[in-house]
Parts: sequence; structure tokens; C-alpha cells
Amino acid sequence: MEYRIEKDTMGTVNVPANKYWGAQTERSRNNFKIGAEASMPLEVVYGFAFLKKAAAYTNCDLGVLPSEKRDLIAAVCDEILEGKHDNQFPLVIWQTGSGTQSNMNVNEVVANRAHEIVGKVIGEGEKTIQPNDDVNKSQSSNDTFPTGMHIACYKMVVETTIPGVEKLRDTFKEKAEAFKDVVKIGRTHLMDATPLTVGQEFSGYVSQLNHGLKALNNTLEHLSELALGGTAVGTGLNTPAGYDVLVAKYIAEFTGQPFITAENKFEALAAHDAIVETHGALKQLAVSLNKIANDIRMMASGPRSGIGELIIPANEPGSSIMPGKVNPTQCEALTMVCAQVMGNDVAVTVGGTQGHYELNVFKPMMAANLLQSARLIGDACVSFSDNCAIGIEPNHKVIKELLNNSLMLVTALNTKIGYYKAAEIANTAHENGTTLKEEAIRLGYVSAEDYDAWVKPEGMTGGLK
Amino acid sequence: MEYRIEKDTMGTVNVPANKYWGAQTERSRNNFKIGAEASMPLEVVYGFAFLKKAAAYTNCDLGVLPSEKRDLIAAVCDEILEGKHDNQFPLVIWQTGSGTQSNMNVNEVVANRAHEIVGKVIGEGEKTIQPNDDVNKSQSSNDTFPTGMHIACYKMVVETTIPGVEKLRDTFKEKAEAFKDVVKIGRTHLMDATPLTVGQEFSGYVSQLNHGLKALNNTLEHLSELALGGTAVGTGLNTPAGYDVLVAKYIAEFTGQPFITAENKFEALAAHDAIVETHGALKQLAVSLNKIANDIRMMASGPRSGIGELIIPANEPGSSIMPGKVNPTQCEALTMVCAQVMGNDVAVTVGGTQGHYELNVFKPMMAANLLQSARLIGDACVSFSDNCAIGIEPNHKVIKELLNNSLMLVTALNTKIGYYKAAEIANTAHENGTTLKEEAIRLGYVSAEDYDAWVKPEGMTGGLK
Amino acid sequence: MEYRIEKDTMGTVNVPANKYWGAQTERSRNNFKIGAEASMPLEVVYGFAFLKKAAAYTNCDLGVLPSEKRDLIAAVCDEILEGKHDNQFPLVIWQTGSGTQSNMNVNEVVANRAHEIVGKVIGEGEKTIQPNDDVNKSQSSNDTFPTGMHIACYKMVVETTIPGVEKLRDTFKEKAEAFKDVVKIGRTHLMDATPLTVGQEFSGYVSQLNHGLKALNNTLEHLSELALGGTAVGTGLNTPAGYDVLVAKYIAEFTGQPFITAENKFEALAAHDAIVETHGALKQLAVSLNKIANDIRMMASGPRSGIGELIIPANEPGSSIMPGKVNPTQCEALTMVCAQVMGNDVAVTVGGTQGHYELNVFKPMMAANLLQSARLIGDACVSFSDNCAIGIEPNHKVIKELLNNSLMLVTALNTKIGYYKAAEIANTAHENGTTLKEEAIRLGYVSAEDYDAWVKPEGMTGGLK
Amino acid sequence: MEYRIEKDTMGTVNVPANKYWGAQTERSRNNFKIGAEASMPLEVVYGFAFLKKAAAYTNCDLGVLPSEKRDLIAAVCDEILEGKHDNQFPLVIWQTGSGTQSNMNVNEVVANRAHEIVGKVIGEGEKTIQPNDDVNKSQSSNDTFPTGMHIACYKMVVETTIPGVEKLRDTFKEKAEAFKDVVKIGRTHLMDATPLTVGQEFSGYVSQLNHGLKALNNTLEHLSELALGGTAVGTGLNTPAGYDVLVAKYIAEFTGQPFITAENKFEALAAHDAIVETHGALKQLAVSLNKIANDIRMMASGPRSGIGELIIPANEPGSSIMPGKVNPTQCEALTMVCAQVMGNDVAVTVGGTQGHYELNVFKPMMAANLLQSARLIGDACVSFSDNCAIGIEPNHKVIKELLNNSLMLVTALNTKIGYYKAAEIANTAHENGTTLKEEAIRLGYVSAEDYDAWVKPEGMTGGLK
Repeated sequence: MEYRIEKDTMGTVNVPANKYWGAQTERSRNNFKIGAEASMPLEVVYGFAFLKKAAAYTNCDLGVLPSEKRDLIAAVCDEILEGKHDNQFPLVIWQTGSGTQSNMNVNEVVANRAHEIVGKVIGEGEKTIQPNDDVNKSQSSNDTFPTGMHIACYKMVVETTIPGVEKLRDTFKEKAEAFKDVVKIGRTHLMDATPLTVGQEFSGYVSQLNHGLKALNNTLEHLSELALGGTAVGTGLNTPAGYDVLVAKYIAEFTGQPFITAENKFEALAAHDAIVETHGALKQLAVSLNKIANDIRMMASGPRSGIGELIIPANEPGSSIMPGKVNPTQCEALTMVCAQVMGNDVAVTVGGTQGHYELNVFKPMMAANLLQSARLIGDACVSFSDNCAIGIEPNHKVIKELLNNSLMLVTALNTKIGYYKAAEIANTAHENGTTLKEEAIRLGYVSAEDYDAWVKPEGMTGGLK
Repeated sequence: MEYRIEKDTMGTVNVPANKYWGAQTERSRNNFKIGAEASMPLEVVYGFAFLKKAAAYTNCDLGVLPSEKRDLIAAVCDEILEGKHDNQFPLVIWQTGSGTQSNMNVNEVVANRAHEIVGKVIGEGEKTIQPNDDVNKSQSSNDTFPTGMHIACYKMVVETTIPGVEKLRDTFKEKAEAFKDVVKIGRTHLMDATPLTVGQEFSGYVSQLNHGLKALNNTLEHLSELALGGTAVGTGLNTPAGYDVLVAKYIAEFTGQPFITAENKFEALAAHDAIVETHGALKQLAVSLNKIANDIRMMASGPRSGIGELIIPANEPGSSIMPGKVNPTQCEALTMVCAQVMGNDVAVTVGGTQGHYELNVFKPMMAANLLQSARLIGDACVSFSDNCAIGIEPNHKVIKELLNNSLMLVTALNTKIGYYKAAEIANTAHENGTTLKEEAIRLGYVSAEDYDAWVKPEGMTGGLK
Repeated sequence: MEYRIEKDTMGTVNVPANKYWGAQTERSRNNFKIGAEASMPLEVVYGFAFLKKAAAYTNCDLGVLPSEKRDLIAAVCDEILEGKHDNQFPLVIWQTGSGTQSNMNVNEVVANRAHEIVGKVIGEGEKTIQPNDDVNKSQSSNDTFPTGMHIACYKMVVETTIPGVEKLRDTFKEKAEAFKDVVKIGRTHLMDATPLTVGQEFSGYVSQLNHGLKALNNTLEHLSELALGGTAVGTGLNTPAGYDVLVAKYIAEFTGQPFITAENKFEALAAHDAIVETHGALKQLAVSLNKIANDIRMMASGPRSGIGELIIPANEPGSSIMPGKVNPTQCEALTMVCAQVMGNDVAVTVGGTQGHYELNVFKPMMAANLLQSARLIGDACVSFSDNCAIGIEPNHKVIKELLNNSLMLVTALNTKIGYYKAAEIANTAHENGTTLKEEAIRLGYVSAEDYDAWVKPEGMTGGLK
Repeated sequence: MEYRIEKDTMGTVNVPANKYWGAQTERSRNNFKIGAEASMPLEVVYGFAFLKKAAAYTNCDLGVLPSEKRDLIAAVCDEILEGKHDNQFPLVIWQTGSGTQSNMNVNEVVANRAHEIVGKVIGEGEKTIQPNDDVNKSQSSNDTFPTGMHIACYKMVVETTIPGVEKLRDTFKEKAEAFKDVVKIGRTHLMDATPLTVGQEFSGYVSQLNHGLKALNNTLEHLSELALGGTAVGTGLNTPAGYDVLVAKYIAEFTGQPFITAENKFEALAAHDAIVETHGALKQLAVSLNKIANDIRMMASGPRSGIGELIIPANEPGSSIMPGKVNPTQCEALTMVCAQVMGNDVAVTVGGTQGHYELNVFKPMMAANLLQSARLIGDACVSFSDNCAIGIEPNHKVIKELLNNSLMLVTALNTKIGYYKAAEIANTAHENGTTLKEEAIRLGYVSAEDYDAWVKPEGMTGGLK
């Protein structure tokens, strides 16, 4: 491989000649060989691209950066956002906890690529754009990284998580409506209970996801607060007046999301409670989705020796010889995602507790976990909706059998023949393995006609919606 | 010990003669000897007292319970709420996961005590009030326990957690104001950084707690939803028309809190995402408080060999011979609470994932964890505010020394003598262990007068508030 | 209430006249009103009693304490261990993180009670035994609390957890043997699979618990290491030569457990990885127990509309009218315990990470969580064994029906009639809702006799034990 | 892109023409678009390669596979292990929870590549090797995936984690020896305490890591148990006699690790407590490392306004203008890793609890988390050792100043002039901000000579090693 020489305040470093990054990025590559390469999420890099562009515009507006430099910086940021430089960001999550080195990676790439854009050769001549003085102007790693991660996380939540969950919620809503008259046996403690409709069960799922979406939306306000303008310790040292508000305005404009400047920059650098807060809502969704996926796979279990009330789509061979063995693979993928999100929540929590003085230095880890959780939930909901939920159908035959076979329906006789006779019927049926109707008639307490007239499961599913 | 005989559908049971509880409570005591006795939180019992009274009123209003019975039930519930029967609830958290046995415990106590109130002897004659038919009328364990736990949790949050956190927040606000001009060295990565004021640091704490309070308040709407009226599986079987809305109205009236009937009873029985949601916000507060308490104990460390910037109150002997060894015991209690809350969050999360079909059977565990977390945070914040935060004072001497001694102030010279000379001054001072001012003069770059005029830390604490 | 005056280096304090504790205990009561009173586990107090007695013996042997004082201290410690002074320890977990105040609580109680034993009046005259100079001789809070908590935790694990788990393991072992010929349908992905025996399923539970017990036992060596002798920072300042080894020997003798002095006292004070390690094994057991309890409740579900393969004991009324509704309440209690233990594991983990310099100050919280987890698992296993596992019986009728009804048995025909014909039989049976035998005959591929001879589920349960 | 047609029991699928995988892999790609592509760890694939080769050898030895097929299968497995086919495994973690599709991915790649090796064109003619009948012979996804993950996890632990931790442990051991006479002030509760040596502090770290390594090693026995031979439900259906023991022997031979067949295959399929157990030990190491890294960054804090007792290597520019601002970036990377591992532990725990009946279907998620944690800890320890620990030096000047300045040394005077005079000296020094020596002389209690003779910190660091 060919190298060129780059330098920083510590001296010179050999950098792969075909890469835009510079000395500090290369040092980080060498000093942090931890886990897979380039694990820093690209979404964070894109978040940086938005903020570098916004900073350039703001600096120019406020008179501290010439418009030519602004335009060059913006041009490279746009290229980054178009995905043209994805292979220029080789750093890992497990670097300095302020993300300084990823900030420098972006600064260096922007500077070197800008040099190239104006027709020069990287490494030759004075840099057209200085990584620190120009690209990082009015900034510090300490306020850029949290800004980049808020942008990345916010966008992931509103662009992937929320639409994914909403899609699944809508599918469940359709099912709730479609199955609203399919009466089935209820189960509490996993044991037979009074009836309800399949639609009512699905309405519970809709309600869970609606509450979860609301909870997630509640967290977005905190996440929309940007640290940028706080610089090194939150005081905003070395920023021109009005910088913080204006740069947030530009970021809002460029991203199309309602970002604002953080009301308190000390909080925004030293704590990442906003990340903790949003991830908490993701964890709540994981809890909901786990319950739902579990229910569905239990109700779809069989084909002969399970519950068998639901039929789910067969997407792949379950067993080469066993017909009807449709494994609930989407449920499995989804619940694995849920477990991961619950774990990530603890990682984010632990990271969140450990800010020291003016800076929390668990930023890259916190960002990476939130981005993973947010994406996994969104993707898994879409996958579950498209490949499972949309195709769920009640197995009417099984549902009817289990319902009619149930002893719980005896409660319908209470008001007609009294509690004790009703209990006797149920007990006898339980002991003899017969149906309630058989025993009701045999014991002489109810006629067949009355039984059919009185024991109507659909009448037990209630006044409640 | 003397016993009387109580019976239920399974037969007879010996119950301590001096207790109001009945057969099912006693069975539970015998079947669940797990952990300390009577671990079911009394707050849940009180939640039940509110709901039993509300149910009696509602049942009476809707014509299914005579007013005499209503008044008797209400009278016992009021006694319970006055704390007169605290020793009548011996059951543990680790019972049936629907809390059925605690529901029956309340039903039995209300029935037997009512019998006594009308002048009869418990165990003699027909029960004046039937535990199941009267006290539990229009109810099921499945909707009462979640209702009782929502009442208990909501009250704990608004009566203990929020006021406690607000008290500490207010104390920090006072400190932020009081110390707003005390300039100190900032620290990032635990390393010296540019200055800020002690007040600015405390304003960050205020902001953290304000965000946390907002997040906690956001969860209350979900928590205010009551399952009551869903009965066994959420369909509301065996409840009179209008029951769910009216009983929530009575609960709101009796508790003075804005409870409403759950929009979806299936969700309210089968999932406890509301508990997960509220506990998530408690965990966020734990994260914030951990950061704050850590900072304070680090800044108060010493007396000679630590950071020593803050003086905290001495509440107990730290060391018999070592003057000035004021251990940050309130920080330690508070951070232990934070760790507990983080753990409890996982317990609640795991419990929340495991609802099956129409019922989540981790209710008592989830309720107990939320109640513990909510109380611990509230209590610990009050304790921290009263016994530590209120008495925090800056150690002006140390703060000034560390500030003036700092090399970070050299950044103030950048714009005056250029980056390279400034760096040379800093480097030389670092190598020689001298002050910037000494070296600035010695190197001939700055006069003493100019140094004092240019290097003003208070000018570096920024345009930001 | 009457009070007497006690004093410490900070001055005087009013203490309830009828209590043995002194000034520092009372200060702690007032300064830490956090959560329920007296939450510090009594087991820790008993651990202290063992160590105070052992320290007195060691100090006497090494010539720094007269034998009269040794005997007095030992006498009070014995009283404490007999449970005579349980109400003398009012402090909470949420105190100073080194447990200093609970150490002083013990010191004060021993001193005042000793004064009384020799016939004097507490608060009058010079103390016969000094809390600091005598009871705490050659000790520091920093090495006593970790010693007390190791004693408490070790004893809880070997006296409650391990016997409890072993009891349940033995019950499962009996069941595995008893049910070793009961062939049933297997289930993977919750879907029907090839057969195995009920005994094989239970042998898996036995194996899980055996592995868990082994893992738990592996942690005991670390837990048997005692910090005592390290005093304030681990150097053993102010201890006579040979003290650490001898005091551990006495503790081993008094407790009957193989305690030894920690090989490195700095680790033993500053980190509590031993607690983390043991709790990790408790968590593993929780994971195992959760799986087992879940399986059992699913297999016992019904009575009509569930899986119904197992019959579990009915310990309490499940439903007043619904015969056969035997709720799996022991499974519910056990899985709630499992969730709690998983949560506690995170609390212990977080506490374990946060030692600073020479001391970890999350000691009381870590001890309390381990003690709770260890007790809950032990108790819950006994409860589960006695009230559920011991009475589990296969529902032979259901098991046989589900087995014979299964389509998975078709795999037995592969080697006889070839894969494709076998698959055709299975497919046809699936479509028609018929049995394999019916279709095998109808399609003319197998005679009834051959079918019975070839399709023997018991032949499919394998050469593996 | 060009495609070829592959088929399975569900029909035909278009597969990229230049890939070896087949229909089932391609279906999985389409059905599980969740998170980043190809997230299934390659280590699992390599684990599969070992087991497929071992199975081929075993099948051949036991007479159910011809040696030509054995050799072909082995040849492709060797190619996979050489990393030649890394881009042939495109599946994600979030697939079917038994890892069936990754098993099929390997089967398909082996079969198609074998076809090519014998000179044929993929997709033309009968497959030389059948993915199911040959490559998967005597296997099921249900026993292969857990086998592959045990192989992968075991190897990662012994090849990366343990050597990494040992390397860091050895570095700390050197430091403990090198600094064994460097006396410094101790700190408890973050407050000044009695002295110890820097070497003693580092010996504590060594002890922590030694205990952690022991704990990790303790888990390896369980992890060495392989499920292979259990096939679908643990009974070993369709395996030749002796298969399970022999195949484990081959795996042990090929990997050079002491793998054995699981004593109970039902446990090995239905539960993954071995993964939970090993990850628990990784979490313990994370706890230890977090404590250590925290200590080091606090002791290295400064350069002027922190603790400043340790000097750590400067690996990258900390601040362009601030000399001596050496950010503890390796500490930050390491503690982020620790937080991640703590989070992963919860994910693994949750996954471990959720086995159902004969199968746990959280396998890929559990494997991925353990592999990540094991690698991150190993890598981060090496990085920390090489880039930080190895270069740590005491700042003797600061250490001496803080020590001599300390008031804790007054305890050395207790035995000479009595407790009360010593305390008076300390108090006066504390109030006046002077040294003990100054006040001791000024108060006339001690001469300068006696002071120097009596107050020797090195004499306070103890008889303990």
C-alpha cells in the first residue's frame, strides 16, 4: 500500500495514500484496535456532515468564515451525505469517549477532499481548508459529537423506528377489525378463562404499540436539543454571538427535523440523559413487542399438538418432511431483537451514569447502542408486519372447537340455574371428559334448546370494545 | 396461638383467631414461604382499599349493591387507609402472579371486619358481607390488582418521588444562583479544561433534574389508566353498564388524583407497559442523580489530597482522628439508591415482557419494584438535599488556586500574541512547574500588567448563561 | 419516649433510653431516612457478631485485649446470634457506603449491653467496654463490613440457596426416573417435533440445575476470602502480626464454614468482585429456573384448551366455578423471583464497577441484593418443590392423544417406504385433518399391521439417555 | 446482477450467480432485512466449518458417508476456515432463533463449492454433495447451531479474551513490583486516608484480574460441552451409535480444544446456560476493568488541577494548545467496552430465560453477544496494556507532596504523644492550612527530629504484602 505523510501537533504519521483522512484518524486506527473495524456508525458520520455544513453556514453568516470556505465545506458534506465517502471513516466505537477522533476524522476528510475539489493534490501545498481552524471552527469535539449523535439518533427514530412500529400497529389494527367477531376462549395464567374475540386480543396489541409510540414521541423533545455552541465545557468559549441558536436553525433546515439549541449546554455535554430517555422508550417498545410476538407464536403453535388458533405464513421450509411445521421465525427474530434492546438499555444506562464534571465520555458507545436499537426495532417491525402479521389468519375450526369444548362457558348458566348446579355440571364434565352440554342435559338441569339459547360465548365478550 | 376455622371452595383452614383474614389468605401464607414475611407493599393494600370502596359506591349507584353494604365496605376501607389494619396483610410478593391472593386478603379482611362492625363475632353466623359476592363484586383479581398497583404507584410518584426530586432541584437552583460568579477550572476527560463557574455546573444539575421530572410526568398519563372494569380477561364480563368509567371517577375522587378508565382493558390486564414506562423515567432520574452525586463527591474530595473545591456538611464522625475527613455519605447513599433503581428497572423490564395471552402474571413483583424505586429516589433526594446539598459551599481558596495555577488559561493569550507563542509559554510552564504568568514574563512575550488585563478567567465563562 | 444522652467525637445525641445503640447509630437514623426502616439485613448483623467475637479472641490471643473483655464481647455476640437483640439494629441499607454506621451500631450495642451484663447502668460510669477501642480493636469499617457481608452471603448461599436448589433438583430427578418411559411429542420452535419422553425433559432440568449448582459452588472460594486484617486501606495498619490469618481461622471455627483470609486485602476492600461473581451464579440459576417453570406451566395449561400434558397440584382455589382451573401459581412465584434476581444482578454489577481508589462504597446495597437473591432462590425452590414439582403427574391420556395424533411420526416411515411416499402421507393427513395411519392405509402404502410395527414412538426417543 | 435458479421444498428462488449459497439462504436474506447485512459473526461460520468436517469424518467412520464425500466436505470446510469464503455468508443474527438458516447457508455453500471442486458447474447436474443428506447428515439445526456457537465462543475466550486479560494482568504485575516502594496517600470514600504504596494498589488490580480469570476458566467446562448428536430434540434420532462422542472427539482434534459431548443433550438444546455462565464471567471482568480504568484516570487527572499521581502515555493530541492535557483515552475506550459487556450480559440473560420445551430459539443473539463481549474485552485489554498501562509512571513529586501534606499521618503520633495531642495537632493544621510538622513543633508537642523519626509513611504501609 502507498502512503503519504500527514502531521499533527505530535508529529508525522503515514496515512494510506488513497484515503482522505489525516494524522489523527490514523493514530486512532493504530491506538484502538478493538473489535471490528469501522464500527462507528455511519449515521453518526452523517450527523457530523449536517453539523459541519451548518457550522460553516453559521460561521459565514456571523462573519468568521469566508463564503468560499463555507461552500467548499458544504460541498464535501453533501458528498458525504450522498454516501460517496463511506469508506473514509475507519474508526471504531471504542476510541476516546468524547468521540474526538471521529470529529477529527470528519474534519480531515472534509479538508483533504476540499483540497482535491479545488484541483490540488492532497498533501501538497498549504491546505485549502484547515481541519481545525476552518472545518472545526466555533466547535469542539465536546459539543460536536453529542450534536452529531443527536442528529443521527433523532433521524433514526423518526425515519426508521416510528414508521416501522406504525406499520406493524396498522397491520394489527386491520386484524383487530377483521377478527372482531371471532370468539375464542380467553386464557389467564395460561389456563382457560372466559371468552373474548381474536380482534379484542389484537386491539390490545394496537393499544400497547400506541402507548409505546406516544412514549417514544415524548422523548423527542429532549433529543432535539443540540449541544453545539457549548464548545469545550458548555460556556460557548470562542463562539460568535448568536452562534448556538443559528447553527441549530441551520441543522433543522438541512435535516428537516425540529432541532433546537439545548437550553443548558452544561447538561448537554456532561450528561446524555436524552439518549437514556429515548432508549428507555425503545426498551418499552421491546417489552411490548416481546409480549405480542410470544402470544402469536404460542397461538400459532402446532400443527397438531399446540394451541393452533392462529395460522401464520410459511416463509421458508420448516421441516422437510413435516407438513404444517411453520416455524414462527419472524417471532423469533423479533424477540431476539427485543432481548438485544433490553441489553442495550443497560449499556446506555451505565454509560449515562458516568459523566464526570463537564463531560460524559461514553458518547460513541451510547450513540451506537441507541442507533442499533432504533434500527433493529424499526426493521424488525417491518419484517414482522410484512412477513408474518399481514398474513395471520384465525384457524376457525380450532378456535371453535376449543371454545365449545371449554368448561368456562358454564358461567353463562349461573344466572339461569344457580351457581351450585352450574358448578356441578362443570365438575362432572371435567371428571368425565365430556362437554358441558352433554352433562347439562344428562343431569337434567337444562334442555338442549335452553343450553344453546343460554350458552352463547359471543354474548360474553362484552360491552367493552 | 388460638385459631378459628375458615373455609373456601377447597375446604377448611385454621386461621389465627385474632386476624381478620380468611381461608385463602392463610393458604397463601402456607404455600408461599418465600423471603421475608408480609413483603407485599402496604401501598398496594391501600390502593386496594381505595378501589374496593370505589367499587362499592359504583355497584350501589348502578343498583347491584345495597347502600348498607356499600357503607360497611367503605367504612372498613377507610379504616385500612387510616393504617388501623396494617398487620392484617401478611402475604408476600412471591405469590400468584396476578396478585389474586392479596385481592382475597383484602376481601376477607373487609368482610370479617364488617361482620365485627355490625356487632357480630367473626366466624359465627352468615357473613354480613361476602368477600367474593360483595367486596369483590363486579371485579376480578385480574383487574383489581393492576388497578391497585396503578393507584399505589401513581400516588408514590406524585407524593414522594416528584416532591423529593423537586426539593433537590430547588436546592441546586439556589446554589446555581449563589455560585454564579465563582469561576473555577473546568474539567473534561477528568483533565483540566477551560473555566466555567460553579453556578454553571449546578445549573447543569438543575437542567438534568428538570428534564427528568418532565420525563417522569410524561409517563403519568399511561399510569393513570385503570384496568378496573375489565374483570377476568378484559371484556368486562359481569359488570353493569357504565361501571368502568364510574368506578374510575370514584377512585379519582377518593384519591384526589386524575385516574381514568383504561382505553383498552386487554392491554391493561395482559401488559404492564405503564409500569415499565414509569420505571424507565425513574431509571433516567437515577442516571442523572448518579452523575451529580459522583461529581459532588469528587469535587469535595480531600481535605488535602483530593480536588477540594467544594465543602460539604459533616453529619457524622468521618474519622476519629482525621479532621476534615468529611465522608460524602449522602452521595454514597444516593448512588447506592441509583444502582438499585437501575437493577429494579431490569426486573420490571423482564416482568413486563412476559405477559401471556390475556394476563401478565408478574404484577406483584413489578409493583413492588416500582414502589421501592419511587420511594427510594424521593427519600434519597430529600435526604441529599437536607443533609448535603443545602450546605454545600465552594472552597474559594482552593478553587482560586487551581484556577490560577491552570495552564488552560493560556488560550486567552492566543488572540493577543498568537498561537505559537502562547503554546510556548504553556509548554515552558508545564515543564518547569511554574505559572503561566511567570513564564509569560520571563519569555518576554507579555508584561505583568498585560497578563493580568488579558488573562481573565471570568471572561471565559461565556455568553451562554 | 425516654431518652438518654450518648456522645461521640461530634458531640451529644439523644438516644431512646431502652435501646443499646449509641450516638453514631442515632445520627445515622436521623441522617438517612431513606426507604423502610431497619432495612439492613439481619444476616449482615449476624456476620458482624461472628467477626466481632473472632476479633476479640484473636486480639486476646495476640496480647492486645484482656480475656475479660474478650469474654464479655463474645457473650454479647452470642446473644446477638441467638436473635435476642434483633430490634437493636435500626439502620438502613442506604447509609454510608462502607457500612461504617452499621459497624458502629454493632460496636455500640456490644459495648452497652456488656456494660449491662456486668451489672452497670447504661450511660452511667465509664463504659466497661469501649465501642471503638475494644469492640472495634484491630478493625476498621472498611474491612469489617466486607467481612460481615461475606460471612452473611456465604452462609445464605450454603444454608439456603444450595439446599433449596438441591431439593428441587432431587425432586426433578425422581420425576425424570418415574417418567422415563412416558413417550410424548417433542416441541421445537413451540411446534410439533419428534418424540421424547417426559423423563428426558425432566432430565434436562436436572442437568440445568446441576450445572447451576456447580457454577455456584465455583464462586464460593472467592467468597470465602475475608478482608479482615486489611483495616482502613488494606495495609493492615494497627493490627498485630498474624492477626488476619488467625481471625479468619476463628471465623471459620465459629461459623463452621471454610473462611480464609483474603490473599490480597487491597482487592478485598476496593472491589467486591466476589459478590459480583456469586451473584452471577445466582442469576444463572434464575435463568435455568425461569426456563423450567415456563415449560411446566405451558405443559400444565388447560384444562381443555391448553397443552395439558402435565397435571400440577391444586393448592388454592383457582376459580370458584371453573373446575380444573389449577393456576400455576408456584411457577408464577418462581418466575417473579427469577426476574427479581436478574434485576438484582444489574444492581450488584453497577455497584461492583464503582469502587474508587482503596474502597468500594456500595457495600450495603451489594450485600442486601445478594442476600435477597440467595434467599429468594432457595426459598422459592423449596416452595416449588414441595407445592408443585413433587406432585406433578403426566396426563397420560392427553400425552398419548397428542403423540398419536402427531404428523412427526411419519419420519419413522422414511426408511421403510422412502421419503417421498412418507411425505405424501403426512401431507394428506395434514390437509384432511386425519391421522397418519388412516392415510397410510388409504393411500395403500402401508398395511395397518406394518404401520403399528413400524411407527413406534418409543423407538424414536433414542440411544441417548 | 446475474442469477441462477436454486430450489428447495418450497420451490425455486433466484440466487446471485456468483454466490455459492442456495435457496434457503436466499429466502432468509429476503425475509429478514433487519439491521446491518451479514451480521452473523464469521466465528460462528467457522465453528460450523469445524463441525461439518468433524461430522463428515464421524459419518464416514461409522459407515454412513463414503470417504469421497467426507473428503470433499472437509476440503470446503478447510477453505472456509482459511477465510476464502467469508463473503458467502450474508445472513443476519435476526433470523430464525435456532440458526437454521445459517446452518443451511453452510450446507449450501459446502455443497455448491464441492460441486465446483470436482469440476462441475453449479446449478448443472445432480449435486455432487447434497446439502441436507450429506453435509447435514446425522445433524439438525437444533444441535449444529449450539455446537457451532460453543466452538466459536470457546475459541474466542481462550484465544482472545484470556490472553488479552493475562497480558494486562502481567503488565500490572510488573508495575506492582516496580512501584512497590512508592508510598502514597491512600483514599477511602475519595477522601484522604492512611498511606499505602502504588505497588499495593496495582497488586489489587492484579488480584482482581486473577480472580476474574479463574472465574472465567471455571466456566469453560460447561462451554466445552457440545450438543452435536442430539439432533432435533436431544434424543439423537437418526444418528449412528457412538456418533456424539466421536464427533466431539474430532472437533476437539480439529480445534485443539478439549471439547466433549454434552452429558445431557436435552439441556444442550433447550437451554444455553453455558453461554449465560461464560458471559457472567466476562461481565465480572468488565466490572473489574471498569474499577481499574476509573482509578487510573482519576489518578492521572490534571495536569495541574487533578490528582496527578500517575503519568500516562500521550498517544494522540489531547489539546492543541494545552500541554500536559493527556486525555485518558484508553481508559475511556475500556470503560465503554465494560458498559457494553454489562449490557450484553442482560441480553444474554434474557435470551437464556426463554427456552421453550425442547429448544431455545435465541441462539444467534446469544452467540453474537458473547462473541462481541469476549472479543472486546480481549482486544481492549491488549490496547490498554500496550497503549496505556505499560507506560504508566508515578509522578513522584506530586505523590510525595500529597503524602507529606496529608493530615492522616498524624495517626503515627498516637502512640508517641497520645490521641488527644495528636488530634489537636491535626485540627490546628487543618484550620491553619499548615503541615502537621509545623504545628507539631509550634504546639511544642514534638521536636523536628522526633517528628521525622516518628512520622514515616513507609512504616504505615504494612506487614501485609
